[in-house]
Amino acid sequence: MRYIIGVDIGGTNVVVGTVAEDGSRLHGKRSEPTLLSAGPGGTVDQVNRLVRESLAAARDELGGGIEVIGVGIGSPGPLDTQSGTVLVTPNLGWTEMPLRDRVATAAGLPATLDNDANCAVLGEWWRGAAQGGAVVVGLTIGTGIGGGIVLDGKVFHGASDVAGEIGHASIDPSGRRCKCGNYGCLEAYASGPAIALRAVEGLEAGADSRLTEYVNGDLAEITARTVSQAAREGDAFCLEVIRETAHYLGGAVANLLNIINPDIVVICGGVTLAGDHLFGPLCNEVRRRAFRPAVLTCRIVPGNLPGTAGVFGAVASYRAQTGESD
Amino acid sequence: MRYIIGVDIGGTNVVVGTVAEDGSRLHGKRSEPTLLSAGPGGTVDQVNRLVRESLAAARDELGGGIEVIGVGIGSPGPLDTQSGTVLVTPNLGWTEMPLRDRVATAAGLPATLDNDANCAVLGEWWRGAAQGGAVVVGLTIGTGIGGGIVLDGKVFHGASDVAGEIGHASIDPSGRRCKCGNYGCLEAYASGPAIALRAVEGLEAGADSRLTEYVNGDLAEITARTVSQAAREGDAFCLEVIRETAHYLGGAVANLLNIINPDIVVICGGVTLAGDHLFGPLCNEVRRRAFRPAVLTCRIVPGNLPGTAGVFGAVASYRAQTGESD
Repeated sequence: MRYIIGVDIGGTNVVVGTVAEDGSRLHGKRSEPTLLSAGPGGTVDQVNRLVRESLAAARDELGGGIEVIGVGIGSPGPLDTQSGTVLVTPNLGWTEMPLRDRVATAAGLPATLDNDANCAVLGEWWRGAAQGGAVVVGLTIGTGIGGGIVLDGKVFHGASDVAGEIGHASIDPSGRRCKCGNYGCLEAYASGPAIALRAVEGLEAGADSRLTEYVNGDLAEITARTVSQAAREGDAFCLEVIRETAHYLGGAVANLLNIINPDIVVICGGVTLAGDHLFGPLCNEVRRRAFRPAVLTCRIVPGNLPGTAGVFGAVASYRAQTGESD
Repeated sequence: MRYIIGVDIGGTNVVVGTVAEDGSRLHGKRSEPTLLSAGPGGTVDQVNRLVRESLAAARDELGGGIEVIGVGIGSPGPLDTQSGTVLVTPNLGWTEMPLRDRVATAAGLPATLDNDANCAVLGEWWRGAAQGGAVVVGLTIGTGIGGGIVLDGKVFHGASDVAGEIGHASIDPSGRRCKCGNYGCLEAYASGPAIALRAVEGLEAGADSRLTEYVNGDLAEITARTVSQAAREGDAFCLEVIRETAHYLGGAVANLLNIINPDIVVICGGVTLAGDHLFGPLCNEVRRRAFRPAVLTCRIVPGNLPGTAGVFGAVASYRAQTGESD
């Protein structure tokens, strides 16, 4: 069995793992908060260190030498898969960063680059909740909302690697300003921070919720995850915040059903912890809005590779880009 | 040279032509208002008659016997390309109509079925304004707003032939009710009748415009086409209606750039007569909203096969479905 190292770079964490080339096993998982204060080069150094550490740990776990054939990298974009360059990522301070070649040189291995959300969706298709889907659309709900489209097992990149930026489809053209410059983007309503913000606004307006105890009165500690957990435990206010989130997401997913007509929509991120409290009203909203034949064809599921979908997908993207998948 | 008959069935007109299999020529073009009063079977009879008439006219034009290998049909949907069945089209009164086989039997030729808007966009890719595009998204603005996605020269159908229903992506989730049951669909704002309705509403509210003379005071005669013509001639009120239309369309197209990242967006329909008065503000709106790498990659163009894009596309779809395109 040969191995491929998968790298998932996020605005919050960097996760690296050494994955069997058939995706059956992941060894030497390393996860660290992204070093944002170290400057652009510092983050690249961190990635390179974690690649070395993951490989060493995988060798320890497997008791000896293993054959590693390459490194697949998933990174926030926009980026250029052909040249392996990240064009610009404000969070990481990168501009025209030749990330693929930096990592390849440090590792002494061939490398590939793809968008982080594309990788997460591809990972769910390869080894997760979207297995078997021919037309898969995925959303990753975290600091932002990423998205990816996987057709017949291949990431659909569009004409210039932008395809799948579902978080930046507007759901209200005159709505909230988004960081991307557009107005009313889904991300401005349903990202992790947007969910937390809606909860905080409600509490500050006097809503009664156990959420306040959860965070010992420090509202800055509220996240989509804490809101989702409280909702799951029956907190009425948090259930309302989650229903609102489901309403936004459901409208966006309904549009995707009419435009792309997927057989699987996979939704990843901490907010999926809310389970049926999220997916129930979300599916209702989709049924209410999308064409019936599209609704009947489509399953809407939570991702089931939390924390590692991006790593598996970076490996699957490496296989696809290098022709190792055939 | 062999020939394929192309059929474009719309809620307003049925257009049929006999097309050289390489798309180089169209003969025996027949166009008639769709017989809606004749009942579901009556419309099918009309299609079959026009197929016979087109073939006879093509033989006359070409001065003798020609080899015809099949019939490609474009029809409003939703429909099932595999079984050749139109599931339901309220305008034509069809429910579970086995249209493909009805036409094939009458013509004594193999036939294929595809969505009318898919065919129009495929026709523009094959022989029109979208030639050379690898990732083409098209909009057909008429009685409704249809759409189609053509990837590497093939219609992208999605999981159940719904893909490309761009007119029924909502641009305002709490907006105008659409005939499809959803709220705020693009079609409810920017279809031909929606453009005409906005013009009529403005005139009734006292706007001053030469449009009133155009239609001899009969506001019911106002169409997207008359509004577009008056705008082209500098009528200030109609220019405003077109700018508003461009704003709606631009927001929707910006979303498509972020989701699908096309290299060509082709817009078909009478409203494109407004030319730069439409495309100028439309492109501005796209630039304002969509990701820069997606904007830089994409040309937004009017269709250049008015009246025949659907016929050419039905023939191209026949070729693709029967494997005649290789």
